[in-house]
Amino acid sequence: MVIPQGLAYSGIANLPAQYGLYGSFLGAFVYILFGSCKDVPMGPTAISALLTFQAIQGLGAEHAILLCFFTGVIQLLMGLFGLGFLIDFISGPVSSGFTSAVALIILTSQVKDILGVYAPGSVFTEIWANIFKDIHNTNRWDTILGIACIIILLLMRVVGQVQTGPKKREPSKLQTIINKSLWLFSTARNAIIVIICGFIGFSFFDNGYSPLTLIGDVPPGLPSFKAPPFGGFYKKVNETVEEHVSFIDMMSNLSTGIIVTPLIGILETIAICKAFADGKPVDATQELIAIGLANVANSFVQAFPGSGALARSAVNNASGVKSTMGGLYTGLLVIFALLFFTPYFYYIPKAALAAIIIAAVIFMVEIKVIKPMWRSKKSDLFLAVATFIACLVLPLEIGILVGIGLNLLFILYHAARPKITIEKLTTRENTEYLILTPDRCLIFPSTDYVRNLVTKHSIRQGIPVVIDCSHIYGADYTAATVVQTLTKDFATRNQPLFFYNLKPSVSAVFEGLSPQDFVVYYDHDQLDDLLRKRSQNTDSNIV
Amino acid sequence: MVIPQGLAYSGIANLPAQYGLYGSFLGAFVYILFGSCKDVPMGPTAISALLTFQAIQGLGAEHAILLCFFTGVIQLLMGLFGLGFLIDFISGPVSSGFTSAVALIILTSQVKDILGVYAPGSVFTEIWANIFKDIHNTNRWDTILGIACIIILLLMRVVGQVQTGPKKREPSKLQTIINKSLWLFSTARNAIIVIICGFIGFSFFDNGYSPLTLIGDVPPGLPSFKAPPFGGFYKKVNETVEEHVSFIDMMSNLSTGIIVTPLIGILETIAICKAFADGKPVDATQELIAIGLANVANSFVQAFPGSGALARSAVNNASGVKSTMGGLYTGLLVIFALLFFTPYFYYIPKAALAAIIIAAVIFMVEIKVIKPMWRSKKSDLFLAVATFIACLVLPLEIGILVGIGLNLLFILYHAARPKITIEKLTTRENTEYLILTPDRCLIFPSTDYVRNLVTKHSIRQGIPVVIDCSHIYGADYTAATVVQTLTKDFATRNQPLFFYNLKPSVSAVFEGLSPQDFVVYYDHDQLDDLLRKRSQNTDSNIV
Repeated sequence: MVIPQGLAYSGIANLPAQYGLYGSFLGAFVYILFGSCKDVPMGPTAISALLTFQAIQGLGAEHAILLCFFTGVIQLLMGLFGLGFLIDFISGPVSSGFTSAVALIILTSQVKDILGVYAPGSVFTEIWANIFKDIHNTNRWDTILGIACIIILLLMRVVGQVQTGPKKREPSKLQTIINKSLWLFSTARNAIIVIICGFIGFSFFDNGYSPLTLIGDVPPGLPSFKAPPFGGFYKKVNETVEEHVSFIDMMSNLSTGIIVTPLIGILETIAICKAFADGKPVDATQELIAIGLANVANSFVQAFPGSGALARSAVNNASGVKSTMGGLYTGLLVIFALLFFTPYFYYIPKAALAAIIIAAVIFMVEIKVIKPMWRSKKSDLFLAVATFIACLVLPLEIGILVGIGLNLLFILYHAARPKITIEKLTTRENTEYLILTPDRCLIFPSTDYVRNLVTKHSIRQGIPVVIDCSHIYGADYTAATVVQTLTKDFATRNQPLFFYNLKPSVSAVFEGLSPQDFVVYYDHDQLDDLLRKRSQNTDSNIV
Repeated sequence: MVIPQGLAYSGIANLPAQYGLYGSFLGAFVYILFGSCKDVPMGPTAISALLTFQAIQGLGAEHAILLCFFTGVIQLLMGLFGLGFLIDFISGPVSSGFTSAVALIILTSQVKDILGVYAPGSVFTEIWANIFKDIHNTNRWDTILGIACIIILLLMRVVGQVQTGPKKREPSKLQTIINKSLWLFSTARNAIIVIICGFIGFSFFDNGYSPLTLIGDVPPGLPSFKAPPFGGFYKKVNETVEEHVSFIDMMSNLSTGIIVTPLIGILETIAICKAFADGKPVDATQELIAIGLANVANSFVQAFPGSGALARSAVNNASGVKSTMGGLYTGLLVIFALLFFTPYFYYIPKAALAAIIIAAVIFMVEIKVIKPMWRSKKSDLFLAVATFIACLVLPLEIGILVGIGLNLLFILYHAARPKITIEKLTTRENTEYLILTPDRCLIFPSTDYVRNLVTKHSIRQGIPVVIDCSHIYGADYTAATVVQTLTKDFATRNQPLFFYNLKPSVSAVFEGLSPQDFVVYYDHDQLDDLLRKRSQNTDSNIV
């Protein structure tokens, strides 16, 4: 599975096919040593390939390798500085919207390979516009092979889910063997398709001419082990002239990709860890360090950025992999392929690889979350859709930042507008009073709102006021100034104001400003005494 | 008071003296009609003048007038769209740090006028560096007059706070008259200094030569009423060549000033409203509309942006101003001055105006908030100092954005890391169980943290777990997915998990995902029944 995927993901990144294989062994070995999730295979993924494609903008493999290096360095630094909590700020809905958009963009980028048309661009809408512009150049044979492969792959996928035999009882030995064979046949579907299509490509190949678009030359042997490129003379993709590019130029070419690629990489890895962790906590810091080191190592063997890959994780998990050592086997397989199989890769049709990707990514469009999200919280569905659309019409990294920004605005608005319950009660001695209960912490964006609300209701009612602080677990200086003003205003109006059940830690914050007439009580029975005392004080002041 | 301040603030904005006066009448009349705070005088302020100075970067009055227009338009739009809540996001500490930094920057910009040296620049550190570079060019007479004026102004200020007569008893008639005269003398100190220094400037003026740097020509008469400049041929400050500047050029020259100036303007106005509101709520929307219209009107009489002015508000309040009509009187005074007094303004020494500003702004450095902030909440003091330093070493608008950004990070971190109390209790029937109480809403940045904590403690203890949701007033889809996983994990481990006292609105969010074995109870006595039922179910499953 790792070999056809590695070849195919290179196509998403718009790089020669061998680069996907280069990223599939050394990093996997490093992850074996440092990673914590047994099911995670470290290597190129559809998302990381797409991010690489968008970051390098057709500038060639050197940029991709440098991006891989910096992705690793940043992930490593995030791990060492304990910044793993940053990925908590990518919520479920934003992540769903992003993943679905990525799936559609990848699908789009592969449609052009299946049609054999020329359609540059990195934004969804742009690529489709270019596909329609060049649709008359469709290669008939590529299209037929591609569509056939997609249909066969989807059917083979269904076969894997078939279970013969009765559901309730233990299956017989024969049934178990049939079930296992079906599962193996289904899991190996990518490899089977690649091999068959490779034969097709070979048989139609005639003296350097082929009706199908083939992968072409893949340099044999392992990549040389050398430092990532920090500037020099490089060729752009599809160009022959070498131009000098400095390190600074390379960095500014990669621009925000340097931030977004490591973040999304670790998000993907941790999402997979969680999915297969069986309820055990996942250590984000350790994962950051492991993936970071793996990417740095990969950048020394000319790979583009990678992360944990969901599809292969699922296979590992279903195959009963028991430790991270599973990566050793796949890594060795890739080395073996690079050493001996590369001549055969020549004949693999590009349309077959595109079909493999399409048949995989259509299941990444998360249509199934729409219904539970709608039932659970409608504003989250809005957020997911907004992120999805933003990622389709804007460059991908801007799109996800828009989603995260919107989500943070939701939280801030939430912090700024607490709910306050207002009730009119009477004490044991039949004195009416107003009790106001804010439902969360008093911190600055909400303080003025609370103050205005308290003032409005207190002036309107003109009876003693109690603020029930049972739910207030935190406060800041701004809240303290508001409490100070409130107590002063109430004293000026000669209206009693008491604080009920205020946590000592919060009380300390308020008392830092030494507000006048600041009275806290913890037992409802004390209220009458307090009221009596207050009215005596007021009377004596007037006398 | 409004006339010397108007003249002086023009100096802060690096504009000819008359522009400060142009902004002091029409806007004030508009505010009378639409404003809600009787004590707020609309006009140029030290902060708005400094923001104008930084935004126009020596590009001349046309840019300042355009900035005034857009400041008004944006404030008006914010008012109409109900965006007044945005100013809630500038907390007390950030506002203190910002104001103190502004005071120091203004002081710095005036020190160069008192010394008579040439020191361009807009950032604090930059101006001081330039002052020291040019210190050998100090004008002796300017310096002597300036320092003398500052000392006299500070003494006159102290005089106003003196109260003759006994404190406890009612003062006699004579004492009252003396107190009132002292207050008047102190309040009029700026005007007195300007008049006296004007005479000094006049007497030392000899055939076009003066040892003191004077204001110079102030064009007489009212400004013409015309649309703000949207592009054309303009001169830069201190230059004679006119250059063509398009509207787009002007906008990009003003850059972030267009956003920051209106925000700070409304912040200043509302801060003043609150300070003198005697506990009545302030309507941010109405203030936004009033200040916005006033600024738009002012841009038609060639003024630079203004807002409510604190110093004059205090005078209005102390003078017993009863309604916003107080602005009518000051506005008419300014018109009168523009029509008849401008020839006399020629002789006013610049050092005298600088002294007036310095004697005012040194009290804007909020040293007195340090102690209560330290006692109340130390992290808020850190925030104030960070904002203060950022505003001194970076351009002012970037400085305050850094402060706001830091503050929002505090809130987000707060949202991401709820406190969870963990207790081991026993039911009536002596079953041990673990009760976990999160202290605030479950929203996405905190959900994984909560899940990891719950999982860790539950696995370690291996007894039934209850999550006390009394303080959880809100949840989102991400929280719902975590609850779903939690219930599933507990079911797999055969460990009972119950939710206690969950609000129905939050329960609905969780149930949107139909989690299995999701049990909520509201009465502590039910726990034993639930536990018994659960263990029976489990037993029957095993059988």
